[in-house]
Amino acid sequence: MGFRVMRMGHRPQRDKRVTTHVALVARALGADGIFVDAADAVLEESVRSVVDRFGGDFEIETGVGWREAIRRTGCATVHLTMYGQRVDDALGKIPRGGDLLIMVGAEKVPPEVYRAADFNVSVGNQPHSEIAALAIFLDRYTGGAALYADRGGRMKVIPNERGKTVES
Amino acid sequence: MGFRVMRMGHRPQRDKRVTTHVALVARALGADGIFVDAADAVLEESVRSVVDRFGGDFEIETGVGWREAIRRTGCATVHLTMYGQRVDDALGKIPRGGDLLIMVGAEKVPPEVYRAADFNVSVGNQPHSEIAALAIFLDRYTGGAALYADRGGRMKVIPNERGKTVES
Repeated sequence: MGFRVMRMGHRPQRDKRVTTHVALVARALGADGIFVDAADAVLEESVRSVVDRFGGDFEIETGVGWREAIRRTGCATVHLTMYGQRVDDALGKIPRGGDLLIMVGAEKVPPEVYRAADFNVSVGNQPHSEIAALAIFLDRYTGGAALYADRGGRMKVIPNERGKTVES
Repeated sequence: MGFRVMRMGHRPQRDKRVTTHVALVARALGADGIFVDAADAVLEESVRSVVDRFGGDFEIETGVGWREAIRRTGCATVHLTMYGQRVDDALGKIPRGGDLLIMVGAEKVPPEVYRAADFNVSVGNQPHSEIAALAIFLDRYTGGAALYADRGGRMKVIPNERGKTVES
């Protein structure tokens, strides 16, 4: 069982930081990789630099649209949106044991995505953040299993109650 | 029992979107309000506009530093950091029944914060996002209780499996 994230509506200049957060959250919560619709070499470089230092084999591909991501993964799809069904209702319906593609948009998501997704899922029906929605969805979907997994990276942070401990 | 968020290291131009996400996540997960260290009238306006439309009485105050926030709230403090103790270990130690101030930084957080906080807590020891860390921490701390609470707002989103339903 694996999962990937599809980031839709990325505008390289304006969304640089928000999409970087989306990618790093996907990685920290155990995703195999992320697709981003707009080509963005700077974003790829910045995410790969984290993987290089902190380990794992998280992949980033930019310039891949949501239709292509669905075609290539061929698995069940979840679209996170504040308009969707409740996450606590949805989690029991989403198939386990297979792969999953989780789609998150920026401000405007085309109506076709709502029809194409197997599940439109809200993480609360209040406006907040696609980064937070992805984080909470993945934390609940994985039961938090990936958060402290060892990635075998060159740099490793050791939990500390009062300061910073980094092995490198 | 209530909680507030303290956003440290805010730079109005550069962090506009990320700090807006932090504030809206705090609101969506049930915080009473947020303090932001740098004064930022545009940010205040944008968060108040969401409260005005979607309801509740979430408060935002900018130009309030972390020392002042600690002094004014006088409650237990949690600093979220990738260097902290594990969130699953920490949750059992954080006092319940009183108020809580949750502090989140931008890139650099001064060492004094690590010493001043009652708890330095990691949401995973991987680099990801203060927005995601806040979201997961609050989701676990509240048991998801606030996500679908009715805020009595002029606009209200009704969960929908296939499209958008907004009452206004």
